[in-house]
Amino acid sequence: MTDYKQMWTDLGLNLETHDALLSVLGDVYQRTFMAQKDRPEGMGYFDFVMSEVHGLRVKELQDARAAGRKVIGTFCVFVPEELILAADGVCVGLCAGAEFGFEQAEKLLPPNTCSLIKSFFGFKMSKVCPYLEASDMVVGETTCDGKKKAYEIFRELQPNLYVMEVPQMKNPQDRELLKSEYWRFKGELEKLTGVTIDAQRLKKGIDLVNSKRQALHRLAALRAADPAPISGLDALLINQVAFYDDPVRFTASVNKVCDELEARIKSGKGVTVKGTPRILISGCPMAVPNWKLPGIIETSGGVVVGEESCVGERGSRNLVSQSGKTLDVLMDAVVDRYFKIDCAIFTPNRERLEHIESMARDYKADGVIHYALQFCSPYMIESHTVENSLRKKGIPGIRIETDYSQGDTGQLKTRIEAFLEMIR
Amino acid sequence: MTDYKQMWTDLGLNLETHDALLSVLGDVYQRTFMAQKDRPEGMGYFDFVMSEVHGLRVKELQDARAAGRKVIGTFCVFVPEELILAADGVCVGLCAGAEFGFEQAEKLLPPNTCSLIKSFFGFKMSKVCPYLEASDMVVGETTCDGKKKAYEIFRELQPNLYVMEVPQMKNPQDRELLKSEYWRFKGELEKLTGVTIDAQRLKKGIDLVNSKRQALHRLAALRAADPAPISGLDALLINQVAFYDDPVRFTASVNKVCDELEARIKSGKGVTVKGTPRILISGCPMAVPNWKLPGIIETSGGVVVGEESCVGERGSRNLVSQSGKTLDVLMDAVVDRYFKIDCAIFTPNRERLEHIESMARDYKADGVIHYALQFCSPYMIESHTVENSLRKKGIPGIRIETDYSQGDTGQLKTRIEAFLEMIR
Repeated sequence: MTDYKQMWTDLGLNLETHDALLSVLGDVYQRTFMAQKDRPEGMGYFDFVMSEVHGLRVKELQDARAAGRKVIGTFCVFVPEELILAADGVCVGLCAGAEFGFEQAEKLLPPNTCSLIKSFFGFKMSKVCPYLEASDMVVGETTCDGKKKAYEIFRELQPNLYVMEVPQMKNPQDRELLKSEYWRFKGELEKLTGVTIDAQRLKKGIDLVNSKRQALHRLAALRAADPAPISGLDALLINQVAFYDDPVRFTASVNKVCDELEARIKSGKGVTVKGTPRILISGCPMAVPNWKLPGIIETSGGVVVGEESCVGERGSRNLVSQSGKTLDVLMDAVVDRYFKIDCAIFTPNRERLEHIESMARDYKADGVIHYALQFCSPYMIESHTVENSLRKKGIPGIRIETDYSQGDTGQLKTRIEAFLEMIR
Repeated sequence: MTDYKQMWTDLGLNLETHDALLSVLGDVYQRTFMAQKDRPEGMGYFDFVMSEVHGLRVKELQDARAAGRKVIGTFCVFVPEELILAADGVCVGLCAGAEFGFEQAEKLLPPNTCSLIKSFFGFKMSKVCPYLEASDMVVGETTCDGKKKAYEIFRELQPNLYVMEVPQMKNPQDRELLKSEYWRFKGELEKLTGVTIDAQRLKKGIDLVNSKRQALHRLAALRAADPAPISGLDALLINQVAFYDDPVRFTASVNKVCDELEARIKSGKGVTVKGTPRILISGCPMAVPNWKLPGIIETSGGVVVGEESCVGERGSRNLVSQSGKTLDVLMDAVVDRYFKIDCAIFTPNRERLEHIESMARDYKADGVIHYALQFCSPYMIESHTVENSLRKKGIPGIRIETDYSQGDTGQLKTRIEAFLEMIR
């Protein structure tokens, strides 16, 4: 492994704390991923990416910056990567998946803040997130109360923070608001990068992101097979890596895994035996290294066949129409695609209920596990509506509310085992 | 006291539970308000209003409905009363200030939901809120995540619920969003009432509400005197009654109290001795019968001289410009006035920090107590920013986080006594 100490020092990381983080991360990865049986060979690429998560990829970002490109860090699937690529920028999802630096975070935030928000504060305050430090612009958004208000405090730590407004309903004036915010973001990107986004550049950005999403859709569809050709953990990992890998290389690597899965399905092979209880996870996003829930499900005799999540199908479904010729039409197509996202921040949000049902049907799930982060009001409150809707359709479901700690692992395992037993 | 049993039965209240509620409310009122010394005589009107809170005022609403008027129930100061009055409607704030029916509410909502939201669910599910039952339309809004998502569930209990979107930033497109929502609301009111809102009607609505707010401003300004001419509890009560009393009668009653306070100030008289520690309360709204915090402050040797709150100056400050002649111009004036509200749901929200400082200065407060309801993310997170801002200005401040229960009263009293001792 290359020595990245100088790069990390240059980025202002705390080397000692950062070493401790990487060591824990490596252990958890070994235990969670390498212990799995019958993994597709193509996962080797993703194992490599993870082993270099704070190394090679960060070096690539630094090289890109040295060559004049700008790195834009994001926390949410509402930030249109198409525009970032059109401005010759690099888009990376930021660290928010581990319980790290929470004590420091709680000096600035109420203890009853969700783990995801505490996590990005913790990473920043502990100086262990190279992506944050390598970002020329960090983009926040007004999705939930927690993030919206926390960004005001985060700005004191991260002065290059830019906050984008996301509407709360799906009426015509909400689409107008999102549209004006995307145009404002475009202007901000142009100012940062010195690149003027024209129709040709935007079309190229759309092509790149559509290809990435098509590969993820292909992967998702293959999981409908019984036995499942890939574990939920590996599929989640691919969805997580989608947020920070080079999009072209990533797309090729996902398609390579898909080729292999198609061959598996043809020969009736899978990662589990036919008849293994199939689970759809629905709810809050799971950022690296948040593998807790699928880890418990898949070591309890179930297999996860889909993620109704921003790190999953909610984030990757729907493509941007490429038929437009002018910048205006292409920008509208971008707005149309993102305006369909059925995040729980919207009211009402019936589309999400329909999507959960269609995913359960398409991926032949035997049950749905709703996953909400503690103190995430939008998903926690909506879980009541999801539960009612599943009950009406006769789909078994349970609601899990947890955080990033490991304290409740035993209790969750007991509940999940009972659920799997019930739906078997 | 008149017998309202038939009216309450007709409204579908649970008489037994409702009797229990009124009995507790009466006891708390006696203990909290009637035990105070040197109250202005004009408070007699408000004592009477409170003694008839579920009686005479509800009968007035029912009489108005029988005469063809419509009652519109609201939960938030973003609902423009001017438009409701212009449509010949009656505007009432709804019950959300007591820990009542929480066990039932928690069947539909996560336990970590703020008391205000649990309270309106509890009142509905226990069938004890005559205002809710007498409302021809109930208006919710997308202010915070908790309310926004809870309304989706509340609609199942209250089918005549209408939800209004409130923006999250203060940019031109946000004003456009609010404007289009106010026009949508106008249309909805016209449909409900059969009244077409024209310039003349709207001007009359604006006049009525401006007069009410002017009376509240007059009251607020008089509290700058040392000794304070009225207790914080009584002033809060007036601000609470503002939400459901008849606006003309209410305005006259407030002005009567103000006449009396002016005479008191001239003769150097007050409800406390000169030099009593003067407190500004800043934060979440306090609906009837939420008198916990000012009650503790004023039985611990302090006096509350202002409320930076929706039930207080955040809700009542700023008038609507009456200079417009056309409906369009008057509607714009309404939008302009409400768009200035500096609720913590906005990001950034520097105006609120400036308002807290100016209130502390204008009302000669010795310290600020920031009041946040548990699980109210916007105010809880913003309290960090408020604390920093006060520290920079050298204004003493503490942060209180509590709910509607009485369990922490002793602990709060200890903290508040220590704070009063410090600033004395």
